[in-house]
Amino acid sequence: MTLLDDIAGVGTDPARGGYSRHGFDTAELELREWFSAEATRRGLDVTGDRNGNLWAWWGEPGDGAVVTGSHLDSVPGGGAFDGPLGVTSALEAVDLLRSRGFRPAKPFAVVVFAEEEGGRFGVPCLGSRLLTGALDPDRARRLTDPAGTTLADAARAAGIDPAGFGADPAALARIGVFVELHVEQGRGLVDLAAPVGVADSILAHGRWRFSLSGQGNHAGTTLMADRVDPMLPAARLVLDANRLVSDVEGARATVGRIVPTPGGTNVIASTVDVWLDVRADDDERTRAVVDAITAAAADTARGSGCGLTVTEESYSTAVTFDAALRDRLAAGLGGVPVLPTGAGHDAGVLAAHVPTAMLFVRNPTGISHAPAEHAEPGDCAAGAVALADVLADLAGPAS
Amino acid sequence: MTLLDDIAGVGTDPARGGYSRHGFDTAELELREWFSAEATRRGLDVTGDRNGNLWAWWGEPGDGAVVTGSHLDSVPGGGAFDGPLGVTSALEAVDLLRSRGFRPAKPFAVVVFAEEEGGRFGVPCLGSRLLTGALDPDRARRLTDPAGTTLADAARAAGIDPAGFGADPAALARIGVFVELHVEQGRGLVDLAAPVGVADSILAHGRWRFSLSGQGNHAGTTLMADRVDPMLPAARLVLDANRLVSDVEGARATVGRIVPTPGGTNVIASTVDVWLDVRADDDERTRAVVDAITAAAADTARGSGCGLTVTEESYSTAVTFDAALRDRLAAGLGGVPVLPTGAGHDAGVLAAHVPTAMLFVRNPTGISHAPAEHAEPGDCAAGAVALADVLADLAGPAS
Repeated sequence: MTLLDDIAGVGTDPARGGYSRHGFDTAELELREWFSAEATRRGLDVTGDRNGNLWAWWGEPGDGAVVTGSHLDSVPGGGAFDGPLGVTSALEAVDLLRSRGFRPAKPFAVVVFAEEEGGRFGVPCLGSRLLTGALDPDRARRLTDPAGTTLADAARAAGIDPAGFGADPAALARIGVFVELHVEQGRGLVDLAAPVGVADSILAHGRWRFSLSGQGNHAGTTLMADRVDPMLPAARLVLDANRLVSDVEGARATVGRIVPTPGGTNVIASTVDVWLDVRADDDERTRAVVDAITAAAADTARGSGCGLTVTEESYSTAVTFDAALRDRLAAGLGGVPVLPTGAGHDAGVLAAHVPTAMLFVRNPTGISHAPAEHAEPGDCAAGAVALADVLADLAGPAS
Repeated sequence: MTLLDDIAGVGTDPARGGYSRHGFDTAELELREWFSAEATRRGLDVTGDRNGNLWAWWGEPGDGAVVTGSHLDSVPGGGAFDGPLGVTSALEAVDLLRSRGFRPAKPFAVVVFAEEEGGRFGVPCLGSRLLTGALDPDRARRLTDPAGTTLADAARAAGIDPAGFGADPAALARIGVFVELHVEQGRGLVDLAAPVGVADSILAHGRWRFSLSGQGNHAGTTLMADRVDPMLPAARLVLDANRLVSDVEGARATVGRIVPTPGGTNVIASTVDVWLDVRADDDERTRAVVDAITAAAADTARGSGCGLTVTEESYSTAVTFDAALRDRLAAGLGGVPVLPTGAGHDAGVLAAHVPTAMLFVRNPTGISHAPAEHAEPGDCAAGAVALADVLADLAGPAS
């Protein structure tokens, strides 16, 4: 029975399969309670910060701490590992270090960041972006979930005062170094036959909402010639995104979410919202993809008599993790592979402020953000050991 | 203050605009209560039938009755008139007939049919289809709404035993003639400068669900070349439907509802459901459109490595209303226009069993199934008077 098994029943999604655990929803709040209890049981002191993140301190809090952790929320219908594995491995690493008689020479904390996936309020890495000042707190408070609940109200219901949202230099100063363990979200380690690796970089990544507006009307009585149907340019946008991204080496463009309003079978939509996720090696390439897709969508919308507004919901520049830290981890773990990733993480947000590193655990299929996401128990155990070794190196007495 | 004003606050949809009132939901149940109270206040006896329809009898129930009415549910984000206008006009017609000292010589009822739009359980004209035996009661009981609630459970919660669903020959025998008043859903009466008209025919109409399946995965880490993304054939289907329908004169094809699963911005969908609404003058043309779209979708799905299943959710053959009744109404109303419609109605379902007619009330924009749907108060009043005249003719002593 691993810690991950403990939470296997929380937030299962019978409709989509897998898990739906989103920032401050019932499932995520239950996982937070569970984390607080597990950390407390280990003698760690749990506190929340002003931005909804949880901190479990081993010993006295202080500046320049060694911090590890991840997030407990998932994408809609996500896997069991993306997020929670980094949290459970952190607690297991604490257990391992204790069993070795280790006591940290530096301040040491396990952190749980709020709403990393943006599955409920649309902005990924919400907790780390707020903490570092990368997200305007006024904008954050006004973010709404699909049911129309604001982040401010959801936070308040969870006992967090949204008036406190925003850059938290004191909390940031406490982080001397951050190491996040995560299930790999590709087949890099499978191909290299290695259970554990170290991250090198994260692609630039943004999310854009394309809102196409037309004239809602009756699907039976409205002649084809009389329609202003925003579903048509929305469909064209999906196909154009897939076509145009191939012009930029290594770039990815995805439409995984599309919402027609009102969304009735016998109703021509009045508006269709299409969310576009684009990633590439650098800002220039990412912007090139988005600009090409936006230009095509504007043309199509104009040609079909529809309106178009494009909103950037989030943007993260490409991240290259701290090279000295990366090499120290890879060497300390006996020369494990170093590899890039296309997935965003709180570690990527923090990397602009403090030395940050990531460990990846092998994923036999490479599938992630889906119920089929997996990591073998032996690989998870190897990940926890590797994390313990890294933390011992970083938090131990200067060698 | 008209009866329609009474219910203007029930079931408003702040997100979509307009009204969302669906079979057996809170808003529709409130409207049923309101109808029962209004009918009772007029001395009508209200009873429910085995299929969730409400009957308000003026005098003793009996076979061969003159029946009028419509439905109280709406499409998602629909207008105020589609459905309720036919119910409020029926009650107003009773008031008018009473004020004229009229007493029906035949049995007389006002009916409210359940879930006409299919906005919750997917099958339109649910109440009239069940009553006439056009819908298998086992299939009906298993229908689910988007939240996964079955029709059986929703009916039970509304105090209706779903075990009683199915063909109701006794209820059908009570209907001697059915007249449904409805807001027009096109610009026919506007162009003819007439406040009221009589229906001639309804297009053939069906709904099909195209389920495309691929491989759910991470939007950032999955290379474009490694994807099996069902959103691409889904988008192609939307465009193909719009292209192929133009091959068939007078036909309409609409995709107003599309649901990717899991529906996350940073997730390649594992499945995408696309609902197709097709209508044409006759069965042959309707089938030709659907067959062409299905063949194109099968090709596209195969080409993209995706699976495809197509489910017919409902089908209604073209309806030509009873010619003698139609002519009697048009003449009795002083030669008002006779016109076809592309919209389905409970009157169309009943037309296969009993003489059935419809009155349309002018819609200044022709827009329907949208918040902008409208009818001027003067035209609504003219509609109620016309309905009273028609009912007096049909239910009065033989002339």
